[in-house]
Amino acid sequence: MLNFIEGGVCAAQGFRAAGIHVGVKTHAAWKKDVALIVSDVDCAAAAVFTKNVVKAAPIHVDKAHLADGKARAIIANSGNANACAPHGEENAEKMCAAAAKAIGCKPEDVLVSSTGVIGQTINVQVIEEGVPALYAALERSNEASDAAAHAIMTTDTVKKEVAVETTVGGHTCRMGGIAKGSGMIHPNMGTMLCFLTTDCAISPEMIKTALLETVGVTFNRISVDGDTSTNDTCCVLANGLAGNETITAKGPDYDAFLEALRALCTALAKKMAADGEGAKHLITCTVSGAADEAAAETVAKSVISSTLTKAAIFGADANWGRVLCAMGYSGAAFDPEKVDVHFASAAGDIAVCEKGRGLDFDEALAKKILTEHDVEIRITMGEGNATCTCWGCDITYDYIKINGDYRT
Amino acid sequence: MLNFIEGGVCAAQGFRAAGIHVGVKTHAAWKKDVALIVSDVDCAAAAVFTKNVVKAAPIHVDKAHLADGKARAIIANSGNANACAPHGEENAEKMCAAAAKAIGCKPEDVLVSSTGVIGQTINVQVIEEGVPALYAALERSNEASDAAAHAIMTTDTVKKEVAVETTVGGHTCRMGGIAKGSGMIHPNMGTMLCFLTTDCAISPEMIKTALLETVGVTFNRISVDGDTSTNDTCCVLANGLAGNETITAKGPDYDAFLEALRALCTALAKKMAADGEGAKHLITCTVSGAADEAAAETVAKSVISSTLTKAAIFGADANWGRVLCAMGYSGAAFDPEKVDVHFASAAGDIAVCEKGRGLDFDEALAKKILTEHDVEIRITMGEGNATCTCWGCDITYDYIKINGDYRT
Repeated sequence: MLNFIEGGVCAAQGFRAAGIHVGVKTHAAWKKDVALIVSDVDCAAAAVFTKNVVKAAPIHVDKAHLADGKARAIIANSGNANACAPHGEENAEKMCAAAAKAIGCKPEDVLVSSTGVIGQTINVQVIEEGVPALYAALERSNEASDAAAHAIMTTDTVKKEVAVETTVGGHTCRMGGIAKGSGMIHPNMGTMLCFLTTDCAISPEMIKTALLETVGVTFNRISVDGDTSTNDTCCVLANGLAGNETITAKGPDYDAFLEALRALCTALAKKMAADGEGAKHLITCTVSGAADEAAAETVAKSVISSTLTKAAIFGADANWGRVLCAMGYSGAAFDPEKVDVHFASAAGDIAVCEKGRGLDFDEALAKKILTEHDVEIRITMGEGNATCTCWGCDITYDYIKINGDYRT
Repeated sequence: MLNFIEGGVCAAQGFRAAGIHVGVKTHAAWKKDVALIVSDVDCAAAAVFTKNVVKAAPIHVDKAHLADGKARAIIANSGNANACAPHGEENAEKMCAAAAKAIGCKPEDVLVSSTGVIGQTINVQVIEEGVPALYAALERSNEASDAAAHAIMTTDTVKKEVAVETTVGGHTCRMGGIAKGSGMIHPNMGTMLCFLTTDCAISPEMIKTALLETVGVTFNRISVDGDTSTNDTCCVLANGLAGNETITAKGPDYDAFLEALRALCTALAKKMAADGEGAKHLITCTVSGAADEAAAETVAKSVISSTLTKAAIFGADANWGRVLCAMGYSGAAFDPEKVDVHFASAAGDIAVCEKGRGLDFDEALAKKILTEHDVEIRITMGEGNATCTCWGCDITYDYIKINGDYRT
C-alpha cells in the first residue's frame, strides 16, 4: 500500500528542515537561498552525482564525506554553483563546518550542494553568518519542507516536493524529497539537486543499491535542454526511526522500499520536466514493442530531447515526422516500417503514423490534443515486448529569454 | 593556388543548371521548388547520406543508381521530403525517369534528392509535368546556378553557393557547389543537401575517397539544432573536362583536388551554420592543445551543440561556465584545471577562464565582442597538440517561431 502524503523532506520521522535568505542571491532579498535538512540521529546515506567531467566543488567534498556511508545533514545554497570557482572545496568545507557546529556533529557528517552561476567565487561568509538563524529555523513541518524546497530554486517556477508512505516489514515507513531543476537538465545522472529523506531502516550498502536502481529509471529519463550540469546531485538519508528490521539484503522489504523510492523519484522527475525553463507542456514519451528496454529508452530519450519535436509541441503541431526522425538518429536499430505513432492527452488520442507511413488524421483534433498541458507521444515499434517512458518539455520563447541573459 | 570564383555549380566546364517553380510548394507560387544539374558528359560520382535509420526514399534510389560510380544529372525538389510517405521510392524513380527522358540518358544516371515536410505524399505529377520547362531552362551561367540554389531552399534565408579554382597536374580545374540546410542540422554526415560539380578528371573510387575525407572535417563539424535529418545528402559529379590526367591514386594531384574540395565544403558548411534557423550569430569554436583530433572534435562539437551556450551567445552573455559545462559532458577525458577559454570577434579578444577558473574580465568589452555576427570561442586544453574547429549558431526566438509551426 503506497500512498502519496504531505510533508516533503519532513514527512519521515526525525527529520527537520529550514530555508532562509542569507544573501548569496544579492538581487532579491526576499528569495530564500540556503536550505538545511537535519536528522535527529545518524543516517545511512548514499548519493549519485553528475557524470560531467567538470564537477562542482561540493561534489568532491560529498564523495569524501560519504566514504563511510553515513550522514546527519545536508546544507545547500542557490545563487552560486561553486563550480570552476576559486577556493571551491575550501568554501564547500566551510559550509559543512558551519552546519556541523550548529548541529553538534562532525563536519564529515554534513553533505553540501550548490546551484546557480558557474565560475564565480561563492560568498561563503554570508552563509557562515546565516547558519545560526538557519539552524534556529529548523522544524518538522510542511512549512519547513516548503521553505527548504524554495531555498534551492534558481529559475524554477514551482517548488518540487513529494512524499510517500508505505509499509516495510509491517512498519509504516515514510519517504519524502525536495528537488530543483529547470535548466541544464539532461538524462545522465543527477540532472538536478534532489534531497530525499526516509525513516526506513536500511543499510548503507542497500540504500546505495536502491538509489542507483531508481535514478536510472527516473531522473535519468528526463531532459529539458540536453545540457548535463556540473552540480547534479541526488542524495538520500535514511535514519531508521520507522522501527522496521533493517534492510540488509534484497527481498520483500527491499522491494517495498524500492517501489516507494521509485514512485517518489518518478513524481519529482516529472515535476522537474514539467517545470523545464520556459516550458508550457510536460511531454511524456512512451515507447512499447521495443526489442529490449535499452532500445526503448534510447528511442524515448531521443524523442523527448529533439529540439524540433519540442518546438512542434510548443506550436501544438502534430508534426510526427520529427518524432520518426528523432527515433532514426537515436542510435537504436529498428525497422521504420513497423513503427506506429499516436499523440494523446486528456483531450483524446489520435493515430498519426502507421507502419512508418503518414495517416490522414483530423488536424483540428490533433491540435486540440496537443494544446493540453500534459501531452503524450505513444510509439509502438513492433520489434519486441520491451517498454520505457521518458519525460521532457517543449522549448519556448521563454527558454531563450531566460537563458539569453541568465547572469545579469 | 586556390581561388574562390563565381558560378556555383556552373563554374566547372560542361555543367548546366536550372531552378523553377512547378508547384510542390503550393503556398508560394513565386518560390522555386525544383532544381536540375546536368553534365554534358558522364561523370564519376559519389555521395554520402544521412546515418539516420529513417531514410527518405530518394536515398535508397540514389544508392542503387550510384552502384556503378557514375551519373549525369541531379534532380532535386524542396517542399516535400519524400520521407515516410506512401509510394516514396516509386515517386523518386519517376523523378529520375522524367529527367532522364528530357536529357536523353538512362534513369540510373540521374540522382534525386528531396527536402521539406516528412510524411506526406509528394506531388510527383507536377514535377513530371514541369521537367520539360526545367530542362529548357538549363544554362551554364551564374544566374542558372543561383536559380538551382534557390530551388532547394526551405527555411533557408540565403542561398548557399561557392566555387573554387585550382591547378591539378598543370590543368586549371574548377569545382563548385550549392547547398541547403537550415534546420535538422547536426554533425553526423550529410546534415543537409549539397550538390558539388567539378571538371577535374578523377576516378569513381578516388572521388568517393575524397568526398568521405572531406565531409568528415567540414559538414560533420557543424550543428544547428542537434537533429540529424532523414534526407541528408552530399554528392559530387566530376566530368573530367578540365583535361588533367585522371586521378586514380593518392599523390600530389589528389592532394590538390582534396585541398580544393575541403575549401569548397568548409565555405558551404559555414554558410549553412550561419543561416541556421533563426540564427543571428555564426559561432566558431576552435579547440587546441587537445590530446588528439578526436578529443578536440568531441569537445568543439559539444560546445557548438550546447543549447545553453547557444542561448548565451544570443544574449551576448560571456557565460563561459556553460562552455566548460558542455566540454565536461562531451565524453572527452581531460583535466578541467588546464583549460583556458577566450571569446573573440572582430571587436577584440578577451580571456575569460584560465586553468579552469574564472578571470575578472571587462564585461563591457566581452559584450561588445559577442555582439558581432561572427563570434569565436577559443579553447586551449593543455593536454597535447591536436586542434579542431567546428561551426554552429545561436538559438533565438525565431528558431522557436519557425519550428513551432513549420507545417502550416
